[in-house]
Amino acid sequence: MPESPIRKLAKYADAAKRNGVKVYHLNIGQPDILTPECGLEAARNLDRKILEYSPSQGHLSLRTKLVSYYAEYGIDLSPDEIIITTGGSEAVMFAYMACLDPGDEIIVTDPSYANYMAFAISAGAVVKSVKTNIEDGFRLPSVEEFEKQITPKTKAILICNPNNPTGYLYTRNEMRQIRDIVRKHNLFLFSDEVYRDFIYTKAPYISAFHLEGIEQNVVLIDSVSKRYSECGIRIGALITKNKEVREAVMKFCQARLSPPLIGQLIAEASVSTPHEYMEQVYDEYLDRRNFLVNELNKIDGVFSPTPMGAFYTMVKLPVDDAEKFCEWCLTDFQYNGETIMMAPGNGFYTDPGEGRDQVRMAYVLNKEDLGKAIVVLRKALEAYNSK
Amino acid sequence: MPESPIRKLAKYADAAKRNGVKVYHLNIGQPDILTPECGLEAARNLDRKILEYSPSQGHLSLRTKLVSYYAEYGIDLSPDEIIITTGGSEAVMFAYMACLDPGDEIIVTDPSYANYMAFAISAGAVVKSVKTNIEDGFRLPSVEEFEKQITPKTKAILICNPNNPTGYLYTRNEMRQIRDIVRKHNLFLFSDEVYRDFIYTKAPYISAFHLEGIEQNVVLIDSVSKRYSECGIRIGALITKNKEVREAVMKFCQARLSPPLIGQLIAEASVSTPHEYMEQVYDEYLDRRNFLVNELNKIDGVFSPTPMGAFYTMVKLPVDDAEKFCEWCLTDFQYNGETIMMAPGNGFYTDPGEGRDQVRMAYVLNKEDLGKAIVVLRKALEAYNSK
Repeated sequence: MPESPIRKLAKYADAAKRNGVKVYHLNIGQPDILTPECGLEAARNLDRKILEYSPSQGHLSLRTKLVSYYAEYGIDLSPDEIIITTGGSEAVMFAYMACLDPGDEIIVTDPSYANYMAFAISAGAVVKSVKTNIEDGFRLPSVEEFEKQITPKTKAILICNPNNPTGYLYTRNEMRQIRDIVRKHNLFLFSDEVYRDFIYTKAPYISAFHLEGIEQNVVLIDSVSKRYSECGIRIGALITKNKEVREAVMKFCQARLSPPLIGQLIAEASVSTPHEYMEQVYDEYLDRRNFLVNELNKIDGVFSPTPMGAFYTMVKLPVDDAEKFCEWCLTDFQYNGETIMMAPGNGFYTDPGEGRDQVRMAYVLNKEDLGKAIVVLRKALEAYNSK
Repeated sequence: MPESPIRKLAKYADAAKRNGVKVYHLNIGQPDILTPECGLEAARNLDRKILEYSPSQGHLSLRTKLVSYYAEYGIDLSPDEIIITTGGSEAVMFAYMACLDPGDEIIVTDPSYANYMAFAISAGAVVKSVKTNIEDGFRLPSVEEFEKQITPKTKAILICNPNNPTGYLYTRNEMRQIRDIVRKHNLFLFSDEVYRDFIYTKAPYISAFHLEGIEQNVVLIDSVSKRYSECGIRIGALITKNKEVREAVMKFCQARLSPPLIGQLIAEASVSTPHEYMEQVYDEYLDRRNFLVNELNKIDGVFSPTPMGAFYTMVKLPVDDAEKFCEWCLTDFQYNGETIMMAPGNGFYTDPGEGRDQVRMAYVLNKEDLGKAIVVLRKALEAYNSK
C-alpha cells in the first residue's frame, strides 16, 4: 500500500503543535458537530451484563430501523438486504473482496476518496479512472470517456454521491448515464452515499437504488459516521439486493466475527434523531460552505467551485505544487502563532501527477475558525509566492 | 473463501430453535461470564459530546495501560509497540497483510483456529501445517516435522498459546524449539496469546516475547474479548518490537481509519478489573473443564485430553463422520426437547479429511447446562450408532 502524503503531513502537524503553533485542520472529515443526545444516551443506558458478539450481519433491530430510514429517501429495502459493517471502510473493502478477483478492474472518477484506491490495491484489483475537472465543477464526463476505460476485465464502477472530495452531486441525467453503462456492460455499481443527508441545492438526491433495471448490480456503501457525527463508533453498512453478493460478503463478515456491539446500539438509537437536529446541522454546514467558498474565491488566484453536497471542496491554489505548499505551511510558516493543514489534491487522483495545484478542504470547523483559517491561508500564499 | 461447515450448522440450529428445541451451544467461544462491572461502567459514564475518530493506532491511554498489564506477565513493552485493532481478527489479518506477499507460506499447527486459514486465503498466502495428534494431547511435533514444511517461500509460523481449539499449552522446551526454528530460518512468529489468563496447570506461561534472540521476529496477537468477556466490543491488539512491521501495519490501520471508540474506553477501564473477578472466572472455567472432560471420558468411545488452558477441548467421538453427526443432532435428534451444537473437528484442520471423528467443544456454559448437554450427547450417540 503506498504512503499517502497526508500521513507525512500529520507528522509535521504534530511537530508544529509541539512547538506551540495552533493548526486549523481543514484536512479531515471529522465533524466538530455534537453527536445527537439520543446516540450518547444509548451508551449511557447500557443495560447488558455481557458484551457479547453480535450476529455477523449486525443486529436485526438496527437493520430493521435502517429500513425505515432508507424508506424516507424512497429506497425500498428489507432488513435481509442490509449487512452492518465496521464503518463504511469495511463495506468498501468487503464489496471489493466479494465482487472482484485479483486483476479485475474497477473504474472510479478522478479525483476520488484516496482509500478507494488503497483498498483496491489490498484486494488486488486494478483502478482505472475517468477524469472530472475543477473547471467544470467536477461534473461527470461523457459516456464515451467511460467506454474508453472499459475492458473485458472491468467489473465495477464506483461512485461517491454526494462526492468526497469534490462535493459534487450527480444529476438525474448523469445517474441515468451511469445506469446505462452499468447495464450495457453488466458491471457492479458500488455507490458510496454516506453524505446523502448533506445536499445543499434543491436538486433531488438520486440514489443508485433509484435507478431502474440495475437493481441486482448495485452495492450501496453507507455509514452513520458523518450523518450523526459518530465517526468513532465504526458503524457502516453494505446494502445490496443481490443475494449472491450478500452471501459472498457474509463469508468475510463471519471471518471477522461481528461489527462493534456498542456502536450498533448507538447507531440504532441515532436513527431516531429528531428532525430539528438534522436541520440545524444542515443549516450549519450550508452556512459554512457559503462562507468558505465565498472567502476562498476572494483570494487572488484561488478557485473553489460551489460544492452541492457533503462537506468538502476541492480548491485550486496559485502554487505549482500544493503538496509542497501544504508541507511548508506546517514546517516553515505561521501567522500569529497559527497555521493550517490541508489535504494535498494529488492524493485524490489515481495519477499523482494530477491535481498538483489543488487541495481538499473540509468545512468541519465552525465559522469563526474557518475565518481565521482563511486569513492564515491568504497570508501563507502571499509569503510562499514572494519567497 | 471456503464455506465453513459451522455456517451450515448455524442455519440448522436456527431451524431447530424455531421448532421449539433447546440447543446447547458447545460450538462457540462466546463466554456466558459477566463482563466486569468497571468495563460496563465505562460505557455508562460516557462523557464525550462528539464520538469522533480515535487515532488509527488506538488511544495512547489504552496502550499505556496495556503496558502495565503485559508487565505483570513479564512482557516489557512501550505504548509505541502496541497497535490497537478491531478485535484479534483484524490483528491476524493485518499481520498477514503486512508480513506476507501473495504466494508466501505460513506454517500453522494442525488443528488450528479456522479463521487463521480463512484470513490467509484472503491475504493470498499459502498455509502449510504440522500435525498434532489428539492421542498425544496435541503436543508440538519434533523440529524435523517443522523443517519438512519449510521452503524458500516460508515467511512465518503461527501459534496459538494456550491453543484454540485444543487447549494445549506449549512447554518451555517447545517454545525454545519454535524459537530455534524461527531464528534459524529468520521467520516471523505470529503468536496468538488471547487465552493467557486461562491456564489451569502450574506450568509457566511462555510468551513469544519471553524468547530471547527473536525479539524482532515476534508479532503478538491479542484481544480483550475472552479475558473480560467483551467479545462484542471488538478490541484487540497487534504488538511487535519490529518497527518496519509496525509501519507496514499502520498503513492498513490508517486505511480503516480507527478502531472502535467506545470499545477502547471499555477495554481501558477493564484493565483495572479486580483480581478477585479474574480469580472467580478462572475458578469457574477450571471447574467446568474438570467436569466436562471427566464426564466426556465416561462415555463409551469418547475421548478428550485434558486441556491445559483456554476454554475449548477437542473430543474424539465414536462416529465415522462428526460433521454428519453434528448436523444430525440439529436436524434429526432431540432428547426431551433438547439438543446440542458442536463444531465439527475437520473445520480446524488444513486438510478437511483430518479430524473427521472429532468435535471442538467450548466450556462456555455453566456446569448445570454442561451436565444437560452431556446427557444429550450420550443419548444422541446411542441413537446415532443404533440407526
